[in-house]
Amino acid sequence: MPQNKTNSQAQTRQPAQQNPVTALDLPIPAHKDLPEPVAQYFSKCQEKLGLVPNVLSAYSHNLEQLDAFSRLYNELMFGDSGLSTLEREMIAVVVSAHNRCFYCLSAHGAAVRQYSGNPLLGEQLVMNYRVADISARQRAMLDFAQRLTAQPETIEETDRQLLRAQGFSDTEIWDIASLTGFYNMTNRLAGAVEMQPNPEYHASYRSADEPA
Amino acid sequence: MPQNKTNSQAQTRQPAQQNPVTALDLPIPAHKDLPEPVAQYFSKCQEKLGLVPNVLSAYSHNLEQLDAFSRLYNELMFGDSGLSTLEREMIAVVVSAHNRCFYCLSAHGAAVRQYSGNPLLGEQLVMNYRVADISARQRAMLDFAQRLTAQPETIEETDRQLLRAQGFSDTEIWDIASLTGFYNMTNRLAGAVEMQPNPEYHASYRSADEPA
Amino acid sequence: MPQNKTNSQAQTRQPAQQNPVTALDLPIPAHKDLPEPVAQYFSKCQEKLGLVPNVLSAYSHNLEQLDAFSRLYNELMFGDSGLSTLEREMIAVVVSAHNRCFYCLSAHGAAVRQYSGNPLLGEQLVMNYRVADISARQRAMLDFAQRLTAQPETIEETDRQLLRAQGFSDTEIWDIASLTGFYNMTNRLAGAVEMQPNPEYHASYRSADEPA
Amino acid sequence: MPQNKTNSQAQTRQPAQQNPVTALDLPIPAHKDLPEPVAQYFSKCQEKLGLVPNVLSAYSHNLEQLDAFSRLYNELMFGDSGLSTLEREMIAVVVSAHNRCFYCLSAHGAAVRQYSGNPLLGEQLVMNYRVADISARQRAMLDFAQRLTAQPETIEETDRQLLRAQGFSDTEIWDIASLTGFYNMTNRLAGAVEMQPNPEYHASYRSADEPA
Amino acid sequence: MPQNKTNSQAQTRQPAQQNPVTALDLPIPAHKDLPEPVAQYFSKCQEKLGLVPNVLSAYSHNLEQLDAFSRLYNELMFGDSGLSTLEREMIAVVVSAHNRCFYCLSAHGAAVRQYSGNPLLGEQLVMNYRVADISARQRAMLDFAQRLTAQPETIEETDRQLLRAQGFSDTEIWDIASLTGFYNMTNRLAGAVEMQPNPEYHASYRSADEPA
Amino acid sequence: MPQNKTNSQAQTRQPAQQNPVTALDLPIPAHKDLPEPVAQYFSKCQEKLGLVPNVLSAYSHNLEQLDAFSRLYNELMFGDSGLSTLEREMIAVVVSAHNRCFYCLSAHGAAVRQYSGNPLLGEQLVMNYRVADISARQRAMLDFAQRLTAQPETIEETDRQLLRAQGFSDTEIWDIASLTGFYNMTNRLAGAVEMQPNPEYHASYRSADEPA
Repeated sequence: MPQNKTNSQAQTRQPAQQNPVTALDLPIPAHKDLPEPVAQYFSKCQEKLGLVPNVLSAYSHNLEQLDAFSRLYNELMFGDSGLSTLEREMIAVVVSAHNRCFYCLSAHGAAVRQYSGNPLLGEQLVMNYRVADISARQRAMLDFAQRLTAQPETIEETDRQLLRAQGFSDTEIWDIASLTGFYNMTNRLAGAVEMQPNPEYHASYRSADEPA
Repeated sequence: MPQNKTNSQAQTRQPAQQNPVTALDLPIPAHKDLPEPVAQYFSKCQEKLGLVPNVLSAYSHNLEQLDAFSRLYNELMFGDSGLSTLEREMIAVVVSAHNRCFYCLSAHGAAVRQYSGNPLLGEQLVMNYRVADISARQRAMLDFAQRLTAQPETIEETDRQLLRAQGFSDTEIWDIASLTGFYNMTNRLAGAVEMQPNPEYHASYRSADEPA
Repeated sequence: MPQNKTNSQAQTRQPAQQNPVTALDLPIPAHKDLPEPVAQYFSKCQEKLGLVPNVLSAYSHNLEQLDAFSRLYNELMFGDSGLSTLEREMIAVVVSAHNRCFYCLSAHGAAVRQYSGNPLLGEQLVMNYRVADISARQRAMLDFAQRLTAQPETIEETDRQLLRAQGFSDTEIWDIASLTGFYNMTNRLAGAVEMQPNPEYHASYRSADEPA
Repeated sequence: MPQNKTNSQAQTRQPAQQNPVTALDLPIPAHKDLPEPVAQYFSKCQEKLGLVPNVLSAYSHNLEQLDAFSRLYNELMFGDSGLSTLEREMIAVVVSAHNRCFYCLSAHGAAVRQYSGNPLLGEQLVMNYRVADISARQRAMLDFAQRLTAQPETIEETDRQLLRAQGFSDTEIWDIASLTGFYNMTNRLAGAVEMQPNPEYHASYRSADEPA
Repeated sequence: MPQNKTNSQAQTRQPAQQNPVTALDLPIPAHKDLPEPVAQYFSKCQEKLGLVPNVLSAYSHNLEQLDAFSRLYNELMFGDSGLSTLEREMIAVVVSAHNRCFYCLSAHGAAVRQYSGNPLLGEQLVMNYRVADISARQRAMLDFAQRLTAQPETIEETDRQLLRAQGFSDTEIWDIASLTGFYNMTNRLAGAVEMQPNPEYHASYRSADEPA
Repeated sequence: MPQNKTNSQAQTRQPAQQNPVTALDLPIPAHKDLPEPVAQYFSKCQEKLGLVPNVLSAYSHNLEQLDAFSRLYNELMFGDSGLSTLEREMIAVVVSAHNRCFYCLSAHGAAVRQYSGNPLLGEQLVMNYRVADISARQRAMLDFAQRLTAQPETIEETDRQLLRAQGFSDTEIWDIASLTGFYNMTNRLAGAVEMQPNPEYHASYRSADEPA
C-alpha cells in the first residue's frame, strides 16, 4: 500500500486522515511493525496481486482477528471444493450487489472480470445478475445465494433440491451456503466502517485482452 | 475432502437420517475418527457446555473450514474487546432474530439467559429487542446491529456517531460490526442447511435461579 | 392480579408506575372495584390459569371494550370449530412472530407449549415456523396465516384451494382467516401500548413433563 | 354450527353462486331463518343505512362470532371516546388503504365521505392519506395508525409522545390503537374470503350536496 | 382552469398560493400568454374534456418539456396499438395504485370509469386490481405491469411468456412495458411536486348511466 | 447499427436472434429503411458517440414513439436547466441502480465517468451512491431522487425543503423530479424487454486520462 512506502520511524501508526482505509480511527500498524508472518503474508499479496487488499490492512489493527479472518477467507475461496474459483467470486459479487457493498463489489467484481476473462460478466453481476449469460447450473447457484441473502428465513428443502437438480452435491451446497454467508459478513463489516477498496480494482481487467 | 481419505471403517460416518444435524448428507466423521486436536476441542466443549454444539459437528465434514470458523468464532466471542461477553451474545440474538435463524436463536438465546441471569432478557431479544429494559448504550449497540443487518447499504457516519455518543471507541465499533457480520454469516449457513440446535438449549437457563 | 391484593381503599386505581401493564396511564380499576361479572371472570382466570392475563387488566379501563373483546376472543379460541385449540394457538404464534409482538408471543408461545406438550414446537413457532415438524395440513394452515398477515392484498382463490386440498372446509377457512385477523389486531394493540406479558408465561411449560 | 342444526327447509341456505358475499361456501341463513335479535339488528341496519352490510351477512353463518364481532365493532366505532366518528372512520380507511382491502375501503371510504361531507377527503384517504388537507392532530393520528399497521414492531414511547403532543389523552391513544388493530383484523378477514362490498357504497356521498 | 379566466395583464403568472396546481412556485404562464399552438391544445382539452388537465398547466412553465411530454403521452395513450384505450387506462391506474399517486389515480380512475362504463371497475383498480372481474388476458397484462412496477429487476422471459400465452404480440408487450414505464414516470413527477388533480375528476362517471 | 449495413433488401427486418437489442421480436427497420430525419439522427449519434444507442434502435420499430421519446430525452438531458449535464447523469445512474437496470447503468454509468472525468464516481453511483465523495448539494439531490424512486408516496414539503436548503430553485426541483421520473420509466421499459446496452459502454472512460 502506498501509505507504507514513505512512513518514517516516528509515524508507525497510519494517520487516520491520510489515505484512510476505513472511517474508523483504528491503530493500524505500519508495515514495518507487523509481525513477521503477517508481513510475509502482506508481501505475498503485494507480489501476487500488486496490492495489499485494504480489508487486510484494516483488520491488522487486531492481529488475532486478521489471522482468523484470513484463514476462513482463504479456505472458502481457495480450499478444496467442487466450485471453481470463478464460481466462488460470482457468489461474492451477487451477494455484495444485493447488499450494495462498495468495497466487495469493487474487489470481487474485478476478480470476476479477471477469472472469467469476460469484463461484461463482471459488470452484469454487479448490476443485475439475472441478465448474465451463464449456465443453468450457475444461475441456480446464484439464485440460491440471492434468496439466502435476501430472505434467509425462507430456505427449505425445495431450494436445496433445485441445486441438486443442477448436479450440485451436498458438500457443494454447503460451500455455496458458506460463501453466501461469508460475503454477508464482509459486506456488513465493510459497509459499517466505510472500507475503501484499493483504487487499482476499478480499472483492472476491463478489457478481454488483459492477461488474467 | 482430505479427512475422508483415511476413513477405513464402514461405520465411522454418522448416518444421515439418525439425529441429523443438518438437512445435507455430509461426510461427518464419528468422534473417534476426528484428528486429535479436534477431538480435544470437542471434548472440552462437552466438558464446559455439556454438549458439542451441532454447528461444530456439521463443520467437521471439512476440518479446514471447521478450524478457520472456530478460530474466528472464538476470537470474536472471547477475544480482547471492550464489549462484554453478554453484549456480544446480545448482538448474536438480535441479528438472528431479524434473520429468524432457529439454530442461532436457540443457542445464543440460551447464552443471553445464562450470562445475564435474566431469562426474560433472552426472551425479549428473541421476540423484539425494542421491548428490553437495557441501557441506552446497549440499545444504541443493538440498533446499530439491527440496521446493519437489515439495511447495510445505509450505514453512514451519523450511525457511527450515535455509537460514539454512547461511549463506544472506534475499535469497539469495529467489534460490533464484526459480530453483526459474523452472525449474518452463521444465520445464513445454518438456515441454508437447516442446522438443528442441540436440544439442551431450549430448556436451559429458564429460571433466574439456575446457576450460569 | 397479585399487585392489587394489597391495595388500600384509598388507592383503588392502579398506580401507573408500579407494575404497569401498559405504557399508557389508563384508569385501570382495582379488582375490588370491578363489576361483579368482570370480577368473577377474572377470578375464574386466576383459578384456571393461575393469573389474570394482563390484556384483560389493560382492557378493564373500558369495561364495554373488555366485554366485547373477551367475547370475541373466547368465541374464536374456544368456540365450535374444526380447528383444534392447539391449531388456533399455533396461528396466534405465527402471526405474532411476523409482527414481533412480545406480549402475544409470550402468552401464546406458552399455550402452544402447553397444549402440544412439546416445548420445542413453541420455540420453533416463535422463531421460524418453517422449521417445525408439523403435518402438511398444519403447514398449509400456517402458510396461509403468514401470507394473509404479511401480504393480505394478494390472497386469492389459489390460496384457498391450497387449504381445501389439505381437507379444510370452507367454514374452517373462515376460522383460519378470523384467527389470523384477530391476532393481527391484538398484536397491534399490544405493541402500540407496550403491553407487558404476565411474568409467569416465560418459564412455563418448558419441559415436556410439565402437566398441561 | 348450532344455528344450522334447526334449519329445516332445503331452500333456506343462500345459494353460494348467486350474489355471493364471499368466495367461501358458507351456510349463510336466509333472513327469515335468523334468530329474532339478529333479524332485528339486520332490519335496523336496513332502515338506517339502506342496506345490511355484507360483512354481517357473511358472519351470520356463525351467530356467536357475529354477535361478538358486532359488539366489538359497535363499541369501537360508536362507543364513548374522545375520537369523533369521522376520525374513527379515517383510521379505518388509512389502515385499509395500506392493506388494500377492497371491502373496507368501499364501506369506510363512503363513511368518510358521508361524515365529513367532503367527498375529496374520502378519495384522498383511499389513495394516499398524506395528501389530505387535515389538521396536525388528525395527521399525527393517521401517521400513528399507518406506522402501527406497517411496522407494528417499531412503535415506542416517542410515537406515543407525538400523539400526546397533539393533545391526545392516553385513553384516546388506546382507542387509536384499538381501531387500528380492529381494521387490521377486518382487512385480513375480508381479503381472505374475498368479501364483496354492498354495491351501494361506491356511488354514495360522491357530491358534497348529498345529505349525510 | 378558472384562475386563467380573470387574469389581468399585470398578473400573467399564476399566483402560487391561489388554486395552486403544484407545491412548487413555478412560472406558469396565464392562458393568454401561451404560444398559439399550446393555447389551441389547451382549448381543445377544455372542449373535449371540460377541463385542462392540471398536469399540462404544471408543465407549461417549460414549454419544451410540455411539448415532449404531451407528444409521448398522446402517442402512448392514443397511438396505434393492439391495446384498447381502456386497457391503457387500466395500466395507468394499476401502476398509480402501487405508487399511491393521488393525481394519476384521480385522473385515470375517472378514465377507467368512463371508458368501461363500469364505475365499480375504476374503484377496484384503485383499491386492489386483484379483485376486479376482468378477462384472463387483462389480468395477465396487469400482473405484468404490477410486477414491472414493484420489482423491475426481476422481469425475465417467463414473464413475457405469460403475456404471449394470453395472445399478446411482442409489439403489444412493448406497449405494455412503455405504458407501465410512463406511469412510473408521471407518478413520480406528480408525487414529487404534489400535483393537484382537477376537482372534476372525483365525482365524474360514478354512475353507469353517465354518458362516457 | 453496423449489422444492418449489409442487409439485403429481402432482409430489411433485423433477425431477432442475431445481435438482438431486445428479447422481443420487433419489426426494427434496417438503417437504410429509416425515414430521412431518423436516419440523420442516428448518423449524428454515430458521429458524436461512436454508436447508435440501442434504446433508439429498439424504439425504431415505432417511429412515432421514437420521436416522442427522443424529444423528451433530449429536452430533459440537454435542455435549459440549472442542473449540469453531469448532475442529470448522476440522477440517471442512482435511479437505475435502485431499479438494477443493466441497460441504463451501462449507458449512464459511462456518461458519469465521461462527464466527471472521474471513473471512480461512476462506479460508486452504480454500486452505492452513499459512498461517493460529492457535494452536500449533489447528495441532497440524489437522496431526493432515491427516495422518490423507492417510496414515491412519501414525498412531502419537508423533502422539497431539503433541496431548497441546498440552493435548488423550484424549477430545478421540477427538473430533478422529471429526471427521476424519466429514468424510472426507461428502467422499466429496458428491464421489461431485456434491452442490451451497446458493448462499447463497458470499457469506456475507465481511466481518468481518457478524453471525455
